[in-house]
Amino acid sequence: MHKLVTSIAALALAIPATAQEAQAPVTPGSVVASATPEEWLAIAPENLLVMELAPDAAGNPRTVIIQLIPAPFSQPWVANIRTLARAHWWDGTSVNRVQDNYVTQWGDVTEQKPLPEGVEAPQDSYVAAQARRVLAIPAHPGVARDSYAPGAVFFRGWPVAVDGGASTAWPIHCYGHVGVGRGYAPDTGSGAELYTIIGQPQRHMDRNLAVVGRVIEGMEHLSSLPRGSGELGFYTEEEAHLRVPILSVRLGSELDDAPAFEYLDTASESFARYVQVRANRDDAFYTVPAGGVDICSVQVPVRRVRG
Amino acid sequence: MHKLVTSIAALALAIPATAQEAQAPVTPGSVVASATPEEWLAIAPENLLVMELAPDAAGNPRTVIIQLIPAPFSQPWVANIRTLARAHWWDGTSVNRVQDNYVTQWGDVTEQKPLPEGVEAPQDSYVAAQARRVLAIPAHPGVARDSYAPGAVFFRGWPVAVDGGASTAWPIHCYGHVGVGRGYAPDTGSGAELYTIIGQPQRHMDRNLAVVGRVIEGMEHLSSLPRGSGELGFYTEEEAHLRVPILSVRLGSELDDAPAFEYLDTASESFARYVQVRANRDDAFYTVPAGGVDICSVQVPVRRVRG
Repeated sequence: MHKLVTSIAALALAIPATAQEAQAPVTPGSVVASATPEEWLAIAPENLLVMELAPDAAGNPRTVIIQLIPAPFSQPWVANIRTLARAHWWDGTSVNRVQDNYVTQWGDVTEQKPLPEGVEAPQDSYVAAQARRVLAIPAHPGVARDSYAPGAVFFRGWPVAVDGGASTAWPIHCYGHVGVGRGYAPDTGSGAELYTIIGQPQRHMDRNLAVVGRVIEGMEHLSSLPRGSGELGFYTEEEAHLRVPILSVRLGSELDDAPAFEYLDTASESFARYVQVRANRDDAFYTVPAGGVDICSVQVPVRRVRG
Repeated sequence: MHKLVTSIAALALAIPATAQEAQAPVTPGSVVASATPEEWLAIAPENLLVMELAPDAAGNPRTVIIQLIPAPFSQPWVANIRTLARAHWWDGTSVNRVQDNYVTQWGDVTEQKPLPEGVEAPQDSYVAAQARRVLAIPAHPGVARDSYAPGAVFFRGWPVAVDGGASTAWPIHCYGHVGVGRGYAPDTGSGAELYTIIGQPQRHMDRNLAVVGRVIEGMEHLSSLPRGSGELGFYTEEEAHLRVPILSVRLGSELDDAPAFEYLDTASESFARYVQVRANRDDAFYTVPAGGVDICSVQVPVRRVRG
């Protein structure tokens, strides 16, 4: 059994629920566990989207919770998404596409369902609409290099890429991030058709598609679905039974018994330490510290505090 | 329907089976489709591992095909894996762990099954055993920056990281890559317990765990399995029914009707173009070319030619 235990510990990514003992090696989990209460920030209820999928074959409920991205990023689409949720527009739609190592996508499979009044694809280009001037971005030396931008940092709880002068920033595609499906440019999508990344993030999508949120609970209900055999992973008509019905999508602010979540302040001391430790694992399992870390490998710690 | 068609085309990653028309935009798929026959190299049958999982609930067969990494990388573990396959050691074992955004892992759940003679964990450290001097690595300017190493290039069909002087290189963890489970260092694992990456690659595993191969067909049979609810995604005893039985694992060289595969020569002109186009998507869907590409976002094209 010893070997099983050590090999289980070996590949750990999960954040332990309890603080490590003082003698224990410093790990990302131990840093998060020792953060102070003031370092945790509440996620506003209007930035929570609660999606109830039909129960699985064994009757287990499948709830997916999405955190919407805060200002200044992608706000026209986020506003549309709130309108769609309040109109209960997604109720009765479905998950229609699961492409391995790419995306799971949901919305109205008929593409005929009328959108609520006021929900339109923004006319701004992505760069104009998404790249925003941000101030006082804290540096995270552990995130030293990015394949897709001169820099990559954390801003208001989100990983963003920044230009050379660090004067503008844009949201990026990481595992579990949610974006807006669309047709060919300059179409930018309304927000009614959404996808989430279920594999290696294809970062060339950054600035070309609107990132509007991330899955913070229930990701496995979207990532472990059978892959579609149609073009680009869409379920074919023969596979129509694989489309998972969406029972409801609600804003946290609409629900009496809404769950509540907090995220670790990305401007906090504990978060800075967390990034450093993620970049230089030197507990008993690792021989060679990486000396750096991909921005998408630093998941912002999120915890449920109610519901 | 037009919108559906365009939004389907929009998120395309798949490589089209047929060449694009001359007027069509240059895409990664069109570059691969126009590669010459000489640019495709055969994968040796002794570098193919054919794993038959038990059929799914609907009775559909589930075959996973793994390409083993060629010399000079990880050869002690690859030799062990060939011995294990020839001994039919994996027959009757199972998939025991599925951790979302991390790994699917298989092997002997009891950890009691005796290994064939000669199969032992190599005593070399990972750096000694895996980082190898390589010569004449072709440059791929599209892969300009890497978060985990001074450089990242392709060598004999595989993405590898290189040190500052490009004098040594080591294999890396990307989506679908297969590595060797182990306990705490200096244990390096025998190769009997294997995992594959099913999410954002955690590149800090590079040089700490032995990369021995990659899934080239049937990845969805490992990535879409239900996640385990035990620690680190292991299936609990209550979930024992979720462990997918492994019916057999065979080397391609053992099979009379072995499938045959080719990969696009990473030193070829077409591959260099493929990387460039991956780094600078400018077809109708994209507004902002990325100007670079993560090494793990450049999947080496592989095609089945028989079986």
